[in-house]
Amino acid sequence: MSLGTVVSRRIPRPTSSILSTVRARAGAPTIRRAYSTAAPGAGGVSRSKALAGCAATGFAIGLGIEVYKGYLNQSLVKCDAVPAVDFIETNGYPYIPFDALEKDDPKNPMRIRMATWVKELQDHICKTIEDIEASTAPNEYSPSPEPAKFLHDAWIRPTGGEGSSCVLAGGRVFEKAGVNISIVHGNLPPQAQRAMLPEHPSLPEPTGTVPYFATGLSIVMHPRNPHVPTVHLNYRYFELEDPETGKPKTWWFGGGSDLTPSYLDVEDAKHFHTTLKEACDKHDERYWPEFKKACDKYFFIPHRGESRGVGGFFFDDLTTSSPIHAPPNSTVPGPTQDQLFDFVKSASGAFLPAYVPIVYKHRNDPWTEEERRWQQLRRGRYVEFNLVYDRGTKFGLNIPGARVESILMSLPETARWEYMSPLGAEGSGTREAELMEVLKNPKDWA
Amino acid sequence: MSLGTVVSRRIPRPTSSILSTVRARAGAPTIRRAYSTAAPGAGGVSRSKALAGCAATGFAIGLGIEVYKGYLNQSLVKCDAVPAVDFIETNGYPYIPFDALEKDDPKNPMRIRMATWVKELQDHICKTIEDIEASTAPNEYSPSPEPAKFLHDAWIRPTGGEGSSCVLAGGRVFEKAGVNISIVHGNLPPQAQRAMLPEHPSLPEPTGTVPYFATGLSIVMHPRNPHVPTVHLNYRYFELEDPETGKPKTWWFGGGSDLTPSYLDVEDAKHFHTTLKEACDKHDERYWPEFKKACDKYFFIPHRGESRGVGGFFFDDLTTSSPIHAPPNSTVPGPTQDQLFDFVKSASGAFLPAYVPIVYKHRNDPWTEEERRWQQLRRGRYVEFNLVYDRGTKFGLNIPGARVESILMSLPETARWEYMSPLGAEGSGTREAELMEVLKNPKDWA
Repeated sequence: MSLGTVVSRRIPRPTSSILSTVRARAGAPTIRRAYSTAAPGAGGVSRSKALAGCAATGFAIGLGIEVYKGYLNQSLVKCDAVPAVDFIETNGYPYIPFDALEKDDPKNPMRIRMATWVKELQDHICKTIEDIEASTAPNEYSPSPEPAKFLHDAWIRPTGGEGSSCVLAGGRVFEKAGVNISIVHGNLPPQAQRAMLPEHPSLPEPTGTVPYFATGLSIVMHPRNPHVPTVHLNYRYFELEDPETGKPKTWWFGGGSDLTPSYLDVEDAKHFHTTLKEACDKHDERYWPEFKKACDKYFFIPHRGESRGVGGFFFDDLTTSSPIHAPPNSTVPGPTQDQLFDFVKSASGAFLPAYVPIVYKHRNDPWTEEERRWQQLRRGRYVEFNLVYDRGTKFGLNIPGARVESILMSLPETARWEYMSPLGAEGSGTREAELMEVLKNPKDWA
Repeated sequence: MSLGTVVSRRIPRPTSSILSTVRARAGAPTIRRAYSTAAPGAGGVSRSKALAGCAATGFAIGLGIEVYKGYLNQSLVKCDAVPAVDFIETNGYPYIPFDALEKDDPKNPMRIRMATWVKELQDHICKTIEDIEASTAPNEYSPSPEPAKFLHDAWIRPTGGEGSSCVLAGGRVFEKAGVNISIVHGNLPPQAQRAMLPEHPSLPEPTGTVPYFATGLSIVMHPRNPHVPTVHLNYRYFELEDPETGKPKTWWFGGGSDLTPSYLDVEDAKHFHTTLKEACDKHDERYWPEFKKACDKYFFIPHRGESRGVGGFFFDDLTTSSPIHAPPNSTVPGPTQDQLFDFVKSASGAFLPAYVPIVYKHRNDPWTEEERRWQQLRRGRYVEFNLVYDRGTKFGLNIPGARVESILMSLPETARWEYMSPLGAEGSGTREAELMEVLKNPKDWA
């Protein structure tokens, strides 16, 4: 069973748009989204018809795309005509519009629950970052009395799926912050399944093309002040269907978060790691040591012989029967999917408490041109890691027709390369060298 | 037969250094190099001994390394102790110190002739770029009354070889210009030979580890003014030895040059291409059409669906029996190695006449902040190409212990990424869109 074909066509923008009512969590304020749900019939959007032989639930999604124009002056221009999904053939799958779900409902399939969660978290994180911007005084780099806001860019993948890229640029604190979600589906040929095997040993031996579903949240935030660290987060859920029964056959969660300072603040590193460790420990005390090690291993730049940052934690292919849950000779049963989802919610929910206090602590730190230059050089390394090694980036760039702007949203607005830069030289006793020391020799901070 | 082991040790800097006397060509001024040739006995450099069973010609190379310190103020600091090659076991190969060769000598083996050529060309190009800097008025980005000079950084590869990286930064015209040569040798296991097969069909089926030799010149220059295009050049000679006879068994030339403007100037594109085409046509009229096509194919960024620049020409694996020389049913014999070397000299010698007039034409063009921003975005694409696709960069970064600073010298000093940048949007009728049009649809300029 597949979520089927997404048919996209251009429709006139509805005369009255209904803003979504997704709430980040109980008590959190409603966040205005770029989505607008077009009422049936308004503007030519029609309900889909159930296809012969299918119990498809048709529905219409109208997408009000805010076109990103005038980057520097950040003006928003609305389109007169917007691309939209006309209908989605669901082949009987209970595909529920995410905007209609106000909170997690355990009766829903995990794909819906995870997609709802990443969407809620996206809203909540964007709102929090906007609060930071609004509570920071204007400065020479962002002199406008109006604080920067996220630009919400909803997109549709013609071959199956949708997503939303939220980008804030030119802020008082954040030079560029990207908060991206995607909810995609399609068919995975045996060759593609085989290519995934080394990283995902829980995949069964491929026997044919299998429908897949993937949803995730991906964040990279590059602050302007060299004393506020860059941060990255990614959470994802992947599912392969049994083509016979239409039920999920293989699934896993992956995710993590890591911190990339230009200047080491031991207290910050400890706070970030301890907050995330506590979220892990609540669910399984075996998680943190292994996931921290995986993070140090993954975010390493071999050609530089250094880590990208001070680490965090990172996991992939996490499922009921993962080796961490089923060590040799163990008779204890692994966690349920619900329990793993609870862990994912805790860990991803710990992101803001881990990062935001660090931002508030340093956002008004004074900085010199040389400190800014060092930050730019460190960002050069960030670019090197993301373009040369990051699996998600490489995978994305290899997919014909992939949305490159969303994939490369992780790159900083500006970066720098100097030949044989003297900054950070070993043994120079500088704060730059102090950072290099821990990048060359990763530490346990928690 | 192999050029054998390079033994490196630290020796005291010779009290009197003898500057090299390599001349770029008759009439060109002598260029001061970072190399200093230490007289035997001076500073502990000793002549090597011919090894038992070998007719090795021992020689000593003293290398005066100018340490790159104080990037911004460009001060040069001399070392008290410099790393140096003590002796090279040549296993009978007539290995002649390059500094002692004043010009090409057809009696020398090609590896020596090509290494000499790239060294001479490096000198000549550095001198020309310094002349451009000296003849340009100081400006706000480079206010010093002293024009910028290349920093010469000689290096030794402990596993076999040497090189010299020349970098000019913070100039009145050039923000960052790198002119790099390398002369390396070693042993190539069958696996590595097999990995080269797809790009080099002239390689014989590997039967065992084979000694190799490679030398080349590599240039990337990033001007500050958005109206002066970035340029790239690379020429190389590769040789595999027959382990039985010690003679070259397989060899080829590769090279080319391409132009990357931020703003299209049709006259510039025509001049660059025509100059290079004429150099090709003198040797074989089949070269240009095929090498131009190869360039457009190679310098393409698939995930962006656009070329890196306006092209140029590019060839690889060029040898006597290359398909371009031996088309089916042809009875005409292919060119000799000497004739191919003559072509390489013409083509690489045409680089300065192709590029320098463009620099002189635009170096004082006024530019706006928005034009600079567009240039920075284009440089972001340059970084994407070099880190994601460039074969040389990928190959280099995968070699453990490779000299990363030389490999990544090609990256610009600064680059920029914007999410969904409005600059260059299709159909906007801007000069940025005009460039995008030819990047999406490569043209024949010559």
